[in-house]
Amino acid sequence: MTPDLPGFDDVLAAAARIAPHARRTPVLRSRSLDALAGAELHFKCENFQRSGAFKFRGACNAVWSLDEAVAPRGVVTHSSGNHGAALALAARSRGIPAHVVVPEGAVLSKLAAIEAYGAVLHRCAPTIAAREAAAARVQEETGATLVHPYTDPRVIAGQGTAALELLDETGPLDALLAPLGGGGLASGTLLAARGTPVFGAEPAGAAETFESLRQNRHVTDFTPDTVCDGLRGTVGAINLAIMRRDGLQALVVTDAETVAAMRLAWARLKIIIEPSCATVLAAVLRYPEPFAGRRIGLILSGGNVDLAALPW
Amino acid sequence: MTPDLPGFDDVLAAAARIAPHARRTPVLRSRSLDALAGAELHFKCENFQRSGAFKFRGACNAVWSLDEAVAPRGVVTHSSGNHGAALALAARSRGIPAHVVVPEGAVLSKLAAIEAYGAVLHRCAPTIAAREAAAARVQEETGATLVHPYTDPRVIAGQGTAALELLDETGPLDALLAPLGGGGLASGTLLAARGTPVFGAEPAGAAETFESLRQNRHVTDFTPDTVCDGLRGTVGAINLAIMRRDGLQALVVTDAETVAAMRLAWARLKIIIEPSCATVLAAVLRYPEPFAGRRIGLILSGGNVDLAALPW
Repeated sequence: MTPDLPGFDDVLAAAARIAPHARRTPVLRSRSLDALAGAELHFKCENFQRSGAFKFRGACNAVWSLDEAVAPRGVVTHSSGNHGAALALAARSRGIPAHVVVPEGAVLSKLAAIEAYGAVLHRCAPTIAAREAAAARVQEETGATLVHPYTDPRVIAGQGTAALELLDETGPLDALLAPLGGGGLASGTLLAARGTPVFGAEPAGAAETFESLRQNRHVTDFTPDTVCDGLRGTVGAINLAIMRRDGLQALVVTDAETVAAMRLAWARLKIIIEPSCATVLAAVLRYPEPFAGRRIGLILSGGNVDLAALPW
Repeated sequence: MTPDLPGFDDVLAAAARIAPHARRTPVLRSRSLDALAGAELHFKCENFQRSGAFKFRGACNAVWSLDEAVAPRGVVTHSSGNHGAALALAARSRGIPAHVVVPEGAVLSKLAAIEAYGAVLHRCAPTIAAREAAAARVQEETGATLVHPYTDPRVIAGQGTAALELLDETGPLDALLAPLGGGGLASGTLLAARGTPVFGAEPAGAAETFESLRQNRHVTDFTPDTVCDGLRGTVGAINLAIMRRDGLQALVVTDAETVAAMRLAWARLKIIIEPSCATVLAAVLRYPEPFAGRRIGLILSGGNVDLAALPW
């Protein structure tokens, strides 16, 4: 039906491709969080990944998948967040140019990180249409390859390597949880899970994936309203197709639950995680039933937070 | 001359004794911090240790060193901070009582942690004399064994296991750094280092160890004034004797340098470390000369921070 969707073998190939560049992140445990959740929680800490988020995995797989004829022309994307920084760093690891289209008004510290990794910034108006037009212009002018933040199959396969490493370290788990934004991490996790149930944790203020699965159509008409700045994107068609094929279960959490879970993770795990990332812990605490007494893997997606403006 | 000072074998014995209870904490790296420091930095993350600090190692070694005749009578200490919580948790791991003498005015969240681990709290006036008197009274009434936060040789040997694990994971290093407070961690690190140079990082507002080593006498007449709440104690005589025997080098850093290093560690390593703990990174950045181009181990001592009152 959808013969060109990526699969488990693509995740394995990605793992081999990115191994020299990506960090094998640690898996942390906390007895007090286990007690609170009534389950055995294994936290895969992608906040420790290079560039501060799992995004480096997918970007790195995309960059190192390019054949030698096109690679020198570089890569381009439109992202003012973690993917832009990750792609810049991945391109640098191969010694090729990276172009990042950023909307006016983007967070200065994030732009500084993208520039520090050596990317060329291209500014545009803060609309999706302007971003896509600017990226198309860069592609045309430079011959750079577009690497979309979450609909690119190479990106999806790369993101799956986090769950692959987690399962390699813990052995079989009863369930995996990943945050739900554009769907790159969640769909990659499904590919790596090979039958282990996968839950996506989605903020109530951007729950279009939950709605898309429930209504069995691709819901794109919504205005995100959530503290989770990494989860405001619209789920991609290919991501949704993988979720349907492999049976993702979406769990919706409020921002208040997410912020409480974020603070709890900081206090108990002693790690910096960003709000988007705390949705998975919030979901386990809000919906205990499917997890009670089980061994659960939670993918903590990133740790890029403005330390001068915490949400509590 | 001081034949009863603990040595490397005591650290090995402690490592075996606490292995079933303590966590083997991860060692983190950061390319950007390496670049800033001009050295290869290996961070031993004791902020991930059980109870949130390295203190659990020493407390656990002390508790499990008790012979079976005295153990059931329990342990007692006077500490409103990390050692009190660590001893309570260590006692629980052996199923014996813990008594913790706490001064009036101690931080409520820390007292709650100590109680949550099952210890009996004994309140007293906020003076050293009152604390020692109260602990002596508990000893007399219960037969509990006193476990001092840093002068107890079993505690010192236990603290050394953090450096032992670090060296086991990284292989030989050119230098080790540990925060300098009462001296339990620094002297334990010296025992484990077996000749690797060890540097202690001490806040300028409580630099009595630096002064004791410089003046070659035990300086105890000072009033601590530092944001590093874990480093306000007075270095112990036995700790100072080990530092002299094994050649500790003390480096003094200001609170401003420490707070900047703490924030830097949060931003780059994505971990929560407490101010005391940031002194080691501050020292490497303030005194680059002995570390330039070398492989350095930094012991990050703990992560118990009030998230509602950050020092920036």
